[in-house]
Amino acid sequence: MYKALRRYCDMAAKYISIAKDITEEMRTMQQSGTKKLPSEAQFAEKYGCSRQTVRTALALLEKKGLVVKCRGSGSYLADTANNSKLVAVVLPDKSEYIYPGIVRDLQNNLSAKGYSVCCHNTNGRVINERAVLTALVETPPAGIVIEALNNVLASPNIDLLEQVEAVGVPLVYLHCGYNRPVSAVCISEDDYTGAYSLVKYLAAKGHKNIAGIMKSDDSRGLERYHGCVQASLDLGMNFSESNYYWLSSESRRRLLNNNDSILHSFIKDYLKPCTAVICYNDEIAFYLIRALRLNNIDVPGEVSVVSFDNSYYATARAMGITSLGHEAHAVGKVAAEALLALMAGRTGRSAALSWNLTERESG
Amino acid sequence: MYKALRRYCDMAAKYISIAKDITEEMRTMQQSGTKKLPSEAQFAEKYGCSRQTVRTALALLEKKGLVVKCRGSGSYLADTANNSKLVAVVLPDKSEYIYPGIVRDLQNNLSAKGYSVCCHNTNGRVINERAVLTALVETPPAGIVIEALNNVLASPNIDLLEQVEAVGVPLVYLHCGYNRPVSAVCISEDDYTGAYSLVKYLAAKGHKNIAGIMKSDDSRGLERYHGCVQASLDLGMNFSESNYYWLSSESRRRLLNNNDSILHSFIKDYLKPCTAVICYNDEIAFYLIRALRLNNIDVPGEVSVVSFDNSYYATARAMGITSLGHEAHAVGKVAAEALLALMAGRTGRSAALSWNLTERESG
Repeated sequence: MYKALRRYCDMAAKYISIAKDITEEMRTMQQSGTKKLPSEAQFAEKYGCSRQTVRTALALLEKKGLVVKCRGSGSYLADTANNSKLVAVVLPDKSEYIYPGIVRDLQNNLSAKGYSVCCHNTNGRVINERAVLTALVETPPAGIVIEALNNVLASPNIDLLEQVEAVGVPLVYLHCGYNRPVSAVCISEDDYTGAYSLVKYLAAKGHKNIAGIMKSDDSRGLERYHGCVQASLDLGMNFSESNYYWLSSESRRRLLNNNDSILHSFIKDYLKPCTAVICYNDEIAFYLIRALRLNNIDVPGEVSVVSFDNSYYATARAMGITSLGHEAHAVGKVAAEALLALMAGRTGRSAALSWNLTERESG
Repeated sequence: MYKALRRYCDMAAKYISIAKDITEEMRTMQQSGTKKLPSEAQFAEKYGCSRQTVRTALALLEKKGLVVKCRGSGSYLADTANNSKLVAVVLPDKSEYIYPGIVRDLQNNLSAKGYSVCCHNTNGRVINERAVLTALVETPPAGIVIEALNNVLASPNIDLLEQVEAVGVPLVYLHCGYNRPVSAVCISEDDYTGAYSLVKYLAAKGHKNIAGIMKSDDSRGLERYHGCVQASLDLGMNFSESNYYWLSSESRRRLLNNNDSILHSFIKDYLKPCTAVICYNDEIAFYLIRALRLNNIDVPGEVSVVSFDNSYYATARAMGITSLGHEAHAVGKVAAEALLALMAGRTGRSAALSWNLTERESG
């Protein structure tokens, strides 16, 4: 017991003393114009301690605002000079679903031009987004890539997004944007046409009644729904609003936390008489297929399931999900190119990426 | 048994023969320029039959498109000449909630200027709206008052709304509109300010955490939500998206059909740690209070409930609901005035009606 406490105190003393040493070292770096700190391994060797102790020391300095950690790129002196080569990427959650891939693609394309990428999670909350944007306005990076939070809802952070423009930082929206700042460009997906093509695909397979699960609070969900409605009417299929279930960001969050009561009530109350479901994305499709099976409904025998994103969810089970996707790495690449153009003072162009269908077993 | 059948056949023969007689009579009316048919009572007396038989005969003629029945005004020859004094009112359901009152107020204000009102239900379905609008384009009325269906979603009926403009029929949106036709005016409510004032009201009573149940697919719901968010932030209250539940038109429909599982899951998953709920309207507030009681949560002791519309739901129970409303008859009056201006070739003005709070027991 005492030994453990002793060891703990030693480590505590150690990382504080190392943090002091690094702070000293940073002063010298500042004078010499060096911005990037040595790696954790280099520090560990230099100070004869574990990498964990170095990490704790750096975390302390980061907390004090003296150091900025950049994913996949190391630690930097926190000053505005350094920010001239930093791109801030603001996402609901950089570690989930399609986002790690997009971050990697952004990094690859931006680092080729000498930029580092720093990720910020908003966890889908306007309060968190507000904190991130406030910090970015105070210490402006070279550019920002941001996914607008539930852009169907008015944002209380428009004031900060306009300040981003005022301090001269170019901004690229990912997937969907607000109409402010006016100089922003948006790299979206051709959601209307994608959904339209899914209805056509299902109609060609003989489906006459199609259901859907869409997201209510971002424009992607609304566009996908619009494509479903228009295609159904154009193709003379049966269409009823009563077969479409709307997920908010909050209900999606609950769904992913294994609360699939939503899907069971969709199956009970919204699905009949449909023989196919168009899902907002692969996450939803993945959990829907599980819920259909729990309800003894055969996929695709009784109900086909198709979806958007062609992500790892689409191939996670033996039964693959028929899903629309883009050319590999396209979103990150196109967004990086747009931002590089803006940062170089050239014109950045909004774009809507087209979709390709990958047919699998689900429908 | 045979007697009943005989009676049925007699009546069937009777109403068909009366329908023929009325058709004859309508020819004479047409020649003389008379548009309005005698009342059911007058026909019944003339043909020596029951009013029910007359009603069945008129329904047959209406089905054939020869007669137009107008609520509260009688039956008319179906021709375009007659439509020059007809206003079509297109609603999700003219017989529910706030709509009967609005229809009555429209009628009172329009009939004073010699117009009759003809109501059409869409039941909240784009397919039905399409049928109604197609008929209105074919036989244009003098003007249209219409509540846009879920105007957050793109409408597949925009083509018909533009045709309404093309055939020269003025159109007034009620509550919320699309951005087409461009000549339309919209009589809405100041939803943002209303919601903002409800948060202020609750904050003044000491509430620090507020939850909400909003509608996701019309702009009223989004504006009310926006007011809640902005007021919470401005007043330094706690705000989290996780306390707001979104109802689509479909889930509202299910809720009103006594499926209140939605409200129980709101109480279980969204309400904590809030002590007040802002409801999209009195319907929702009414059912929420019932659900809170079933969960042994005291209103307003543990949770206050406030709402919009100040409708009969707000006073339907011993515990009245604190609710925002307008001056009596304001919506119908202002909409009628706007349409009368447009029909007279004058400029019609969009307006957003302000709200007044009626405090009752619920919060």
